[in-house]
Amino acid sequence: MCKTNTGMACRFTLSPMSDSFVDIILGAIGKVDGSAVSQRTDKLSTVYRGSRAAVEDAVKACFLYAYRPHVHMTMECAFSTAPAPEGEDRGAVNGEKLGEFHFPAVGKLTLYPLGTGEVSLWREKVAAEAKERGLCREEAYDGPILAGDVQDIFDCLSAVNGLCREGLEDYTLEFTLSVNSPTPD
Amino acid sequence: MCKTNTGMACRFTLSPMSDSFVDIILGAIGKVDGSAVSQRTDKLSTVYRGSRAAVEDAVKACFLYAYRPHVHMTMECAFSTAPAPEGEDRGAVNGEKLGEFHFPAVGKLTLYPLGTGEVSLWREKVAAEAKERGLCREEAYDGPILAGDVQDIFDCLSAVNGLCREGLEDYTLEFTLSVNSPTPD
Repeated sequence: MCKTNTGMACRFTLSPMSDSFVDIILGAIGKVDGSAVSQRTDKLSTVYRGSRAAVEDAVKACFLYAYRPHVHMTMECAFSTAPAPEGEDRGAVNGEKLGEFHFPAVGKLTLYPLGTGEVSLWREKVAAEAKERGLCREEAYDGPILAGDVQDIFDCLSAVNGLCREGLEDYTLEFTLSVNSPTPD
Repeated sequence: MCKTNTGMACRFTLSPMSDSFVDIILGAIGKVDGSAVSQRTDKLSTVYRGSRAAVEDAVKACFLYAYRPHVHMTMECAFSTAPAPEGEDRGAVNGEKLGEFHFPAVGKLTLYPLGTGEVSLWREKVAAEAKERGLCREEAYDGPILAGDVQDIFDCLSAVNGLCREGLEDYTLEFTLSVNSPTPD
């Protein structure tokens, strides 16, 4: 398969359900080392672009820095194949500091393989990856719902992204993350 | 084209960025006439299922009932083709009461045509519909960003959904809506 889209774009929206949402969002985005990605914020969301490793790292940093122990927050991310970034890939520049964060989270992965008839096949691979990691809480009609430590969920996201990057020319992987939801289990 | 998926499912998440988010969300969901859809709420989102008209109507009602003049709120919706609903279609049962709500909103439409190679072609049709209606504020890489009165934006969503329902066997239409954002224009 000829791969022209070796870069990645991620459009994401952080939604802290709190009167302090502006401080939480701007504080987190400001704290992220964004030197390995290009960044654009519009009225609806922020888009990071770069290599897969750099983009996943920046998104993860943003969510972890925005986390507050008692604030319900969700993040909606759409990871899409994109043209290869120019210049040297600096990779996961936030990585080292991020390992210390641990808290329970709930997530969902919905894959949209584009330009191929193999939609079900690829969605099954996504669900299988979540199950193998013991994170699949439920299989919804559009993808697995995950529950576990936030680090394990981001690891699963990265594994699925790697799998898709390897086998699909074009796709979007929607990733939703939720913490401190008041909805009972 | 043989259409087996004549129903629609919509998974959506309301995110009021307010300490009162629980009251706002539950108040809105409780006020919606849900008699024409089936409803399931999990830890991440609510899913309405039914005919296209019934599902669009229930989602719109939920957003309009959740609106508060000074509260920043977003809604993420994924409208997907689904098996035809059983029983009589009661249609847009909330409709009449919803026309009185008017406020400015920003939105985005991202189409994922599934199982077809014509991704760009269909995405161009979505952007064209938004432009014809004078709602296209910007063409992002993944779809048009809309700005206008909330009624016009929901009308555009419905027109795009109708267009896709007519020509595509399988797709997901992601629809994002945002009100009272503090981000300057």
